[in-house]
Amino acid sequence: MTVLSSLVAPGVWKLRLGEPEAAVPSALRQTNPSLDALSALGDPGSCPISTDQVGFDVSARGVRVFLPLGDEEQIYGLGLQLRGFNHRGGKRTLRVNSDPTVFLGDSHAPVPFYVSTAGYGVLVDTARYLSYYFGATRLVSAGTDQQDENRALTVSAGIPEYFTSGSQSAEIEVPVAQGVDIYVFSGPTALDAVRRYNLYSGGGPLVPRWGLGVWYRAHGKSTQAEVEALASDLRETGVPCDVIGLEPGWQTRTYSNSHVWNKTAFPNPKGLADGLASSGFRLNNWTHAFTHPESPIYEDLVPLSGDHEVWHGLVPDFTIQKTRDIYSDFHAKTHVDAGVSGYKLDECDSSDFLKAYWSFPETSRFPSGLDGEQYHSVFGLLYQETIHSIFQKRDQRAYHLVRNSHAFAASYPFVLYSDLYDHDEFIRGVPSAGFSGLLWTPELRHAVSREDLLRRLQSIVFSPMAHVNAWYIKNPPWKQYNVDSNNSGSFSPEAEELTSEARDILEWRMRFVPYLYAAFTRYRLDGTPPFRALALDWPGDERTHSIDDEYMMGDRLLVAPMVASRPERDVYLPVGAWRDFWTGDLFEGGASYHVAPDVTRIPLYVKEGSIVPLARVTPHSGDPAALRLTARVFGDGHLAAELWEDDGLTLAAGQGDANRVTISWDATRAEAVLAREGAHAGDRYDLIGTERVG
Amino acid sequence: MTVLSSLVAPGVWKLRLGEPEAAVPSALRQTNPSLDALSALGDPGSCPISTDQVGFDVSARGVRVFLPLGDEEQIYGLGLQLRGFNHRGGKRTLRVNSDPTVFLGDSHAPVPFYVSTAGYGVLVDTARYLSYYFGATRLVSAGTDQQDENRALTVSAGIPEYFTSGSQSAEIEVPVAQGVDIYVFSGPTALDAVRRYNLYSGGGPLVPRWGLGVWYRAHGKSTQAEVEALASDLRETGVPCDVIGLEPGWQTRTYSNSHVWNKTAFPNPKGLADGLASSGFRLNNWTHAFTHPESPIYEDLVPLSGDHEVWHGLVPDFTIQKTRDIYSDFHAKTHVDAGVSGYKLDECDSSDFLKAYWSFPETSRFPSGLDGEQYHSVFGLLYQETIHSIFQKRDQRAYHLVRNSHAFAASYPFVLYSDLYDHDEFIRGVPSAGFSGLLWTPELRHAVSREDLLRRLQSIVFSPMAHVNAWYIKNPPWKQYNVDSNNSGSFSPEAEELTSEARDILEWRMRFVPYLYAAFTRYRLDGTPPFRALALDWPGDERTHSIDDEYMMGDRLLVAPMVASRPERDVYLPVGAWRDFWTGDLFEGGASYHVAPDVTRIPLYVKEGSIVPLARVTPHSGDPAALRLTARVFGDGHLAAELWEDDGLTLAAGQGDANRVTISWDATRAEAVLAREGAHAGDRYDLIGTERVG
Repeated sequence: MTVLSSLVAPGVWKLRLGEPEAAVPSALRQTNPSLDALSALGDPGSCPISTDQVGFDVSARGVRVFLPLGDEEQIYGLGLQLRGFNHRGGKRTLRVNSDPTVFLGDSHAPVPFYVSTAGYGVLVDTARYLSYYFGATRLVSAGTDQQDENRALTVSAGIPEYFTSGSQSAEIEVPVAQGVDIYVFSGPTALDAVRRYNLYSGGGPLVPRWGLGVWYRAHGKSTQAEVEALASDLRETGVPCDVIGLEPGWQTRTYSNSHVWNKTAFPNPKGLADGLASSGFRLNNWTHAFTHPESPIYEDLVPLSGDHEVWHGLVPDFTIQKTRDIYSDFHAKTHVDAGVSGYKLDECDSSDFLKAYWSFPETSRFPSGLDGEQYHSVFGLLYQETIHSIFQKRDQRAYHLVRNSHAFAASYPFVLYSDLYDHDEFIRGVPSAGFSGLLWTPELRHAVSREDLLRRLQSIVFSPMAHVNAWYIKNPPWKQYNVDSNNSGSFSPEAEELTSEARDILEWRMRFVPYLYAAFTRYRLDGTPPFRALALDWPGDERTHSIDDEYMMGDRLLVAPMVASRPERDVYLPVGAWRDFWTGDLFEGGASYHVAPDVTRIPLYVKEGSIVPLARVTPHSGDPAALRLTARVFGDGHLAAELWEDDGLTLAAGQGDANRVTISWDATRAEAVLAREGAHAGDRYDLIGTERVG
Repeated sequence: MTVLSSLVAPGVWKLRLGEPEAAVPSALRQTNPSLDALSALGDPGSCPISTDQVGFDVSARGVRVFLPLGDEEQIYGLGLQLRGFNHRGGKRTLRVNSDPTVFLGDSHAPVPFYVSTAGYGVLVDTARYLSYYFGATRLVSAGTDQQDENRALTVSAGIPEYFTSGSQSAEIEVPVAQGVDIYVFSGPTALDAVRRYNLYSGGGPLVPRWGLGVWYRAHGKSTQAEVEALASDLRETGVPCDVIGLEPGWQTRTYSNSHVWNKTAFPNPKGLADGLASSGFRLNNWTHAFTHPESPIYEDLVPLSGDHEVWHGLVPDFTIQKTRDIYSDFHAKTHVDAGVSGYKLDECDSSDFLKAYWSFPETSRFPSGLDGEQYHSVFGLLYQETIHSIFQKRDQRAYHLVRNSHAFAASYPFVLYSDLYDHDEFIRGVPSAGFSGLLWTPELRHAVSREDLLRRLQSIVFSPMAHVNAWYIKNPPWKQYNVDSNNSGSFSPEAEELTSEARDILEWRMRFVPYLYAAFTRYRLDGTPPFRALALDWPGDERTHSIDDEYMMGDRLLVAPMVASRPERDVYLPVGAWRDFWTGDLFEGGASYHVAPDVTRIPLYVKEGSIVPLARVTPHSGDPAALRLTARVFGDGHLAAELWEDDGLTLAAGQGDANRVTISWDATRAEAVLAREGAHAGDRYDLIGTERVG
């Protein structure tokens, strides 16, 4: 059958195989590609996959596709993958599932995009639960090779490690569909392919500066007074915080939801928001989309919802504009008008893995014509659109949490999170999400020890969102990490010392806000993920290919988080010269180093020659003092820092109202100097000092 | 849409929904229903599910079916389920998978049959990977109920335990198909429904008496001389054994297979088999179906195989008679002529769960028109047919091992096994398999301690096959259970004592052979599973509904295996009077008892009043002394024992050449007495004594 190829954007080709379904991500997306930015990425070359390398056929099962796969290619992506990293040799099926226990492809946020170390990316434009076999299958017609020794004679104990050699294809199956479009993104490097995918998705999000501060969620049963007391306590103990989150107790009905303020617990929502704002806090409200019969919008939603209930609530069909309007209008006037700055969108995923199944089944039917499988794929993304449109209409930035996402997600300012809690998996999520236009927070909830508390705090500081999700503990975990003791109000004898240690760690988040803000701006402008795997920056270095416990934060910093159960670890530093961020010690890259850092210090490395701007620590990011910077100069300072100035709050920066700031080393004056381009007239960075290291 | 109902056998109705696919289990089966036995089961009543209770519709996804489900119904079956037991509230997808890590429905042997405690069974006649939601979904049209409290206020810590109340259906989705036949099996009890399903499958298998003895597999690298030495060692140490198994080393090529004897390692296969036979051993050969290019049948199989290789071998399409003939003829003349008495059919399942995917993908195409999904479902069963036909043609019984099975499997004399090894799961497999016409062995491979060795040995003795699968240890595990030490020939200082303890346990298998043989005969004649969950015999007793670590062996014995990690356990005894088999202590049923038995004794209970015949211990079941029985009489002996005499080797018993033997209590003579009906003239049981207990 014929494959039709067309160039749809610079470096982006669409291959049409058969007759695709109507309800696919490219048709349902509510965002536009960043075409100018794609043009600016440079010569895309020709399509990395030629039409004659593509095989496909269709059957009652769906579409079967064969794409080329070289022997050395390693494959990453497919959305947030907590259970594994490199897909080579595996079978993955992209199902929406919140509690995967194995590396099968199930995910909060599966994305049918993968990237190869050979320097190209592939998006399969489907909302189906497609399957991939990456070099794990072989057609009979492929002929024989030499891998046929008597395996029995090589097995001494245990189950033989099965393998399939000689496969030369990525075999993909899209169920149900009788055709599919495949988008191919050119390199030349893997990182370029990811950039193109992100820009084709619309580029990274415009995040508010306050979103990069520290987040703290109150206990689910908290009343308004208790939330206000919490805010006071955070300021009194000097723990920085920009956002306070409410959990289900703010609604009259939850699981499913009324979406209505519980005025018994929260008698004056606007008063709460205003009061918090006066201390520099934003308010973020938990919710989910399943709508209880008591909700004022229930009746309007009945004809606009799926045929199955979830927890006795409706599942609104957000593919329909009218549904999104009803939903967002109600949320706007009920919550955002009262001062809510963003949401935590819970349970828009699904779970096959818990004891009792929950969410709408894949068998569901929606008024738009989508079925449950298709709708699971796009539900989270359209829920993001529905909610975020409220803020966009108000020329207001926001930063939110969400539990499900999919293709073309990059431009939504939403960070994924999970009810899972394995720290290794939570760390892996950071680089994993970065392959396919997603952001992830390894949130802190509780801890089992001081070490666990501090190690998890370090992980959130060096992630897209520094989120303390204390929804089931009444007091901050640094006062008592044991859940039961915490809830009974019994604080640890070490509470003061732990608070001090926690504050020290969170203060580093505040220092890095300008650096992070620049990394997010770059994500928006050229598609470079602010947090990403080493395999993206060093695809030619095989030793990076399986590293899922280290990642780049921006362009200069390599983060190698620790987990409490292992006080020592190996850190691989890719080729080049590096310095320990804390001590300034110099390391030659291309080698592994064994480290046993003190529990108060996360292993953090910086490229030799970097200038890293650090902000003054403030209680929240809106404090004007947060704009005062010290330049930490490593070695000869030949790698200047790039920062961005804009209002941090409105959409104006998206229209170019921003300054590009460079901090470079002036050898003559022997100090760092700041230069800016642009006409933004608002708050500006102030370089108040230089620290030389090494 | 209309549901068409027809009575296809006594107590078995077929509901036709839409237009079913051609390649379904009922069309591909090679066996016939036992119609006479179904008639003999008694009044089946009317169909437990009326057509107006059935809802269905079709879409591009497949068929969606709604069947009634009462609030109190508990659901079991769906084949071998090692990860869980009761399906109520869950979603299950029946995929063929050898290494499931969660209770999602994946299984070596998924069977689309379930049974309800309400007393009926349902088979969905499909080879697709169908999904079931058992009371886990709810349509919006179902209306509201009272389960809508503010859940957030009830959650103190941890993830809320989600639930769906008010569901009144089993929702089933069969992918791809545009229609499906559903077979409904009547009760009145759940056990009756299982019996009807088994009889509709053809009834239980005709097993050779030797199959119920002890099995021992030699190390995978063993040579002929080493296997002969092993046999001698077993006889010298007095460990009973009927069957010795060979692992891959007997073939010239494996993974994939040549199916040809490796004459270097096994210079004289017939000499080996004859020599073993002279000591009372049968020979069982490991193999799998994937056929290596070096195999003499490779070229003939090319046009009769799927389009994907597995380990560089062909996947023969066993739905085609010619394929089965080529395959079985070659095996017959190459192995069975040499004296092979049966096979271990490995890897006819699949694995998504290991690090590297293996087996043919679901995307495969077969010359018969089946795709990989359909063929995975029927592959194991048709492989069983292919292999077992060799023996049937020779008027010879056999007993085999297999790694995959499906619907209508009951009459095949194959026992499932697994590379998994969790002892709790292995125990659960025994009652789990019994719900849907399957047999399972919790095989012993190695052990981590004396306790582990003895507990696992006890589990295999009280299972469908007492299989010691020592394929990766060179010497019997009772000489050294540590794998490395065993393979280096370093025996345990306790080897002699452990051998004695192991022998004592395995000798109990030999004592129970007549009892087991009767239970298997009953399985064949009236469909009663020889090993089954308490929930089948006591469906009205709620306390049995989740018991997956106890089971009935035959009609008299309740087995409650121990695992080494827990030296104590609770044993629930259903309503009625029971005795401890070992001590004769009397227990009132309807209650749980805490037990802490010595590691040499498995908790075993017998219905008060039972007569249990025990055979004399012999080195193998073919020893004439094995027919000498002692009747162990518990209490008043009012529950007579039923035994069966036949030749134990040919198919003649299937034609009625058998005696029904009753051992009952003669109060006058104060001893057990034997009576027989039938004209079988061969070997007969000899009642040589009575032991009274209690």
